[in-house]
Formats: sequence, C-alpha cells, structure tokens
Amino acid sequence: MKIFYSDTHRKHQPPFEVFDGGKRVPYLENADRMECILTALQNTDWAELTPPTDFGLKPILAVHDKDYIAFLASCWTEWLILDPTVAESPEQHAFLPATFALRRKSSHVPSELLGKAGYYIMDLSACIVAGTYEAALGSANCALSATEFVAKNQSSAFALCRPPGHHAGKDYAAGYCFINNSSVAANWLSSKGRVAILDIDYHAGNGTQDIFYERDDVLTISIHSDPDFEYPHFIGYADETGAGAGLGFHRNFPLPKGTGDEGYLSALDEASNLIKSFAPKYLVVSAGMDTFDGDPLGTFKVTRDGFAEIGKRIAMLGLPTAIIMEGGYANAALGENIVTLLENFKS
Amino acid sequence: MKIFYSDTHRKHQPPFEVFDGGKRVPYLENADRMECILTALQNTDWAELTPPTDFGLKPILAVHDKDYIAFLASCWTEWLILDPTVAESPEQHAFLPATFALRRKSSHVPSELLGKAGYYIMDLSACIVAGTYEAALGSANCALSATEFVAKNQSSAFALCRPPGHHAGKDYAAGYCFINNSSVAANWLSSKGRVAILDIDYHAGNGTQDIFYERDDVLTISIHSDPDFEYPHFIGYADETGAGAGLGFHRNFPLPKGTGDEGYLSALDEASNLIKSFAPKYLVVSAGMDTFDGDPLGTFKVTRDGFAEIGKRIAMLGLPTAIIMEGGYANAALGENIVTLLENFKS
Repeated sequence: MKIFYSDTHRKHQPPFEVFDGGKRVPYLENADRMECILTALQNTDWAELTPPTDFGLKPILAVHDKDYIAFLASCWTEWLILDPTVAESPEQHAFLPATFALRRKSSHVPSELLGKAGYYIMDLSACIVAGTYEAALGSANCALSATEFVAKNQSSAFALCRPPGHHAGKDYAAGYCFINNSSVAANWLSSKGRVAILDIDYHAGNGTQDIFYERDDVLTISIHSDPDFEYPHFIGYADETGAGAGLGFHRNFPLPKGTGDEGYLSALDEASNLIKSFAPKYLVVSAGMDTFDGDPLGTFKVTRDGFAEIGKRIAMLGLPTAIIMEGGYANAALGENIVTLLENFKS
Repeated sequence: MKIFYSDTHRKHQPPFEVFDGGKRVPYLENADRMECILTALQNTDWAELTPPTDFGLKPILAVHDKDYIAFLASCWTEWLILDPTVAESPEQHAFLPATFALRRKSSHVPSELLGKAGYYIMDLSACIVAGTYEAALGSANCALSATEFVAKNQSSAFALCRPPGHHAGKDYAAGYCFINNSSVAANWLSSKGRVAILDIDYHAGNGTQDIFYERDDVLTISIHSDPDFEYPHFIGYADETGAGAGLGFHRNFPLPKGTGDEGYLSALDEASNLIKSFAPKYLVVSAGMDTFDGDPLGTFKVTRDGFAEIGKRIAMLGLPTAIIMEGGYANAALGENIVTLLENFKS
C-alpha cells in the first residue's frame, strides 16, 4: 500500500500550546506521533513509503481564502519584525493571538499582525512557528499525492499528514490545523467524480464542514464527540446539515462521552448508509485515532478491535479511498492502531 | 463633586493576563489604579466620596443577555468543580478559555464551561477570578448611582468604576470589561430623556457600539486609536455608523498612532458638534485616560494640558454629565489626569 509521507513536518515543532486557564503545556500534536506510525508501518510487509509530489498553491487556493494563506506564509516573518526579541530565542516562541474576532461578522481585516491573527486563528493550539507554513504545504502535498494515486489506480492510499487539517476552515486555523488536507484533496478529486468525506477523528471536522457546507457535489460526514462538551465547541451539532445547494449534504454524528466500539459502530453504519445512497465515485477518510480508549485528548473507549472493525466496514463500501491522517495522541498505541485500520485497505 | 466608589473592586485581582504569543504578564488593569485616583481626589477640596446604591440586576439585564450574566455569575464555581486543583491555590489562577467562537454565528451555546467561555469571552485580558462578578456588579452600581445623581440634580457626577466596562458587549466580556457600566447607566438614563455617550478611552468602545448599534434614542460616539492597528481590532472603524433604526446614531473617530493634543481636540470638536445636533438631555462620558503620553497600553501623546482642554470642551456642552471611569494604566500620572479632567465639572 502506498503511504505518502514527507519529513517536512519536522519544521513545525511549537514549544508549547496554551490550554484553558492560560496555561502553557507541551505541544501535544508533536513530531513523535509520526515516528510511532512510521515504526509500525515499517514492521509490516505491505507499507510502501513514497515522497509526495509538489502540487503548488492552486489546489490549496481552490479551498482556502488567499488572504488567509498569505497570512500563514508571512506571519512568522512579520512577528520577527514586530518583536525582534523573538529572534533571540525563536525555539522558545510560538505565535498566538490574544484577541479573537468573536461571533460577529467583521467588515474589516486588520492590517496589523496581531489583529490579523485574531481574525484568522480560532484557538491557542494553532501555534505558528518559523516552519509551520512549509510543513503545512508538505502535509497538503501528501494528501494530494495520495488522492492522485487513488484516482489513477482506482485503489486506496494513505497520506501520513502532519500537521493535520480537518479543523482548518476556509479562512481560519484551529486545533493544530492550518491547511485542510482532506478538503484540499477531496476538492481536487471532485473534478473526477462525486466524493464523500468521512471524518472519524474524535473531534468534529468543523473545517471540512465549513468548506463544503454549501456544496452538493461533496458529501461530508463527521462522527465525533458532542461539541456541547468537547472541542471545537461551536460547530458539529446534529442539526447542522448543510445550507443552500448543500442542504442535506452534510451530516454530524455527535456522540456522548465514553462511547465504545458498539456505540461508535452503530453511528458508522448509519454514516455508511448515507454514503451508499450518495453513491460517490471516491471516498476520503479523515482518519483521526483519538477515539482510542486512553487518548489524552479523548473520552471515547474505542479499542484496537474496534479500529479493525471500523476499517473493515469502511472498506466494505468498495470505493477507491484516500485515507488522510488527522489527530491521535496516544503515541504508544498510535502506530498499531493506524496499521490495524489500514490493513483493510491494502490491495 | 460626588464621586461614587466601592472597595468591592478589590475582589477582582487576577494574577495575570495573557498577551500575544501566549505570554503571561501581570494584570495591568490592577487595583493600584484606584489607589492612585483616590489619593489625587482626596487632595482636592471638592471630591466627595460616596458609596453606591444597589440597583439589583434589572438595569443590567436591560442591556446584557441574561445567559451571559448567568455565565459570569457561575463561571468560577463551575471551574472549581471541573478542575479541583484550582481550589488548592486559587490566587494563582485566572479563568480564561482557549477556544473562541470565531466570526461565524453559532446556533448553539455549549453547555460545558470551556465551550461557554469561548462563546462569551473574546480575549485573554478578560480574566475571571472568584470575585470578578461581585466586583463587576459593584462597578455597575457606581455608574448607576452617579447617573441617578445626575438625573436628580441635573448636574454632573463621577463614577470611579473598576473593572471598566466599555469593551463588554451585549453578550461577551473583553479587554478587562465584564459589565458595560456606561451602557447600563446610559440605558437607565434613556427613560428620562435622550442620552449621548462620548467614549474618550484610547481603545474603541466596541461593547457600547454593540449594545446601542440599532437604537436611535442613544447617540454613541467613540474617539480612539484606529482598530486597524490597535485592540479591539475588529470593531471601531469609521464606516460603522449604526444599523436599522440606529443608522446614523453611532460614530467612530479612529485616529493614527502618535495622535497628540491638537489632533485629538480636532476630533473632539467634530464629536461635540454631533452631540449638539442630537441635542440630548444627558451626557455619559466613558472616561479612559490611556490616551496619555506614556500610557503603557497606548500610542497617543495627549498631555495633562490636553486633558484640561478636553474636560473644558466637554463641559461647554452644558449637559448634566455622568463621567464613568474606563481604562488608563500610567498609574503615576493617572490620579492627576482624572482630577484635571473632572475639575471642569465641579459645580
């Protein structure tokens, strides 16, 4: 099975993130996650690591606002100019805004960096460092390369993406995500046939929902912890089902704390039926592994056997599938969990 | 001159706030500010300190969303339940969310505390501690008491409010502000005749703008640093002039970095002309002193002579005026600056 992966993600290593209560903690979405997955993949006899192709900015700008992408590209440099003390110890700094454009529509995007940042960043986990933009581009190229392979070969492939993408909206970064890899890939793929995106990350795929909410050519489904108690808090509710032409082409399955294999698979079966009715030509899976019992960011109790069954049921849809890495922070189990999921898709 | 003041503000002493870059710094809107002002007032022969009357919740709920006020009231207690380690050293903690409801309208208010907080708080300077709500109520009562005095006596009074209020919107806390004292007072006063609010704080009075934006019975004017480069970044632009019935009844005067007495007074003269045309029965002044040359949060260069002239020109409007304390962080000069402003209003 083709695994598209680039080491570029190592350039994105924020020294901290900020949790509720203004508390700095080590950045949980760390490079070690990739090491754990690579090790597990290298222990199989079917994983074929391949570097991504560079697709350029066009497929990214087809999904994201150009001024937002320009902000990601220039943010760190602008910060060094604004605060030269950062350059003295860049490895100790991560750029984060302190003021956010709350709920009201803003008619103006401020031109000064700190205002722009509060316009384009939604939380204190989307930390920007010198290499963030380059890493995010590399990650998107992994997703695009996997998707191109899927389209060419009508088979499946895995994009080992870091940073993840599904929390990034049209014009905002959030939750460790800067460019929405799954959405960029699905949009690219949509010119070749109808696409469904199935998001199995523990957290609602708010960014993907945001991007495709008014479109009927890409069905988006997210199974996740109820935002009423969990990040991203403000999007991912059951009554959000699309708008305009997209009405009926988005579905959320918010699940309660403590959801285990049985509850999860029941939601997955319902999602699978929706995908079958939509009859897409391709499937994109936003594969977060933080539903795992013991994940430091999760409350679900999905087991390794659960991941085997999840993979089996998705594979039974019989669609050429691009599997895109999202979250998952129980590093010790992460590699085996991904391998367990992917084993259903090796040809 | 009547000065309404309550020591209750001392219950609100957050140990830190968080600046851009996720950096904890000492809470700049501190209790010492009040000490400096009280000392300066006590050195005059005209300042008459008076405790406020308790007006209850009704005039506050006439301006603020009731669920938002309930959040302020219960937030700290809910946090102690959610994170019992906070109770071990409450003086070292300040409640702040890490995820914010960015720009999109949210159809749901999350029921869990951290989600609610990101719905109701817009930045990392609106820190909540055990006594915040009580202090905010005390501050609003100072504003209401001053306003009641103004209405009864058709003369002027000063509300020495802390925490300040003008950044708090209908349903959000921001920039050291929780209850919008000037707006609560102006709304109370509006049943007795037309009211104009003039905001002379260095920062745009976004909360006051938010509250009265669709009303034509209260004229709101804010003179401030251009939000294109300064907090609150997303509101306070010149083209925001009210909506619906309120169209034409809001005005912003965004001024450039480095504005001195001359530039400031020129904007004030224009604002004064608008107030004269509106012909209100009462005036409420949101009196921030952070336009002062040397204020740690400001970039303007207004001098003490400038404050004397600002006070003189506002007093020349000849209106019964409630002067409500907002920001101002150059503590060493703060007391004398306020006294200089107020001297124009002593009867």
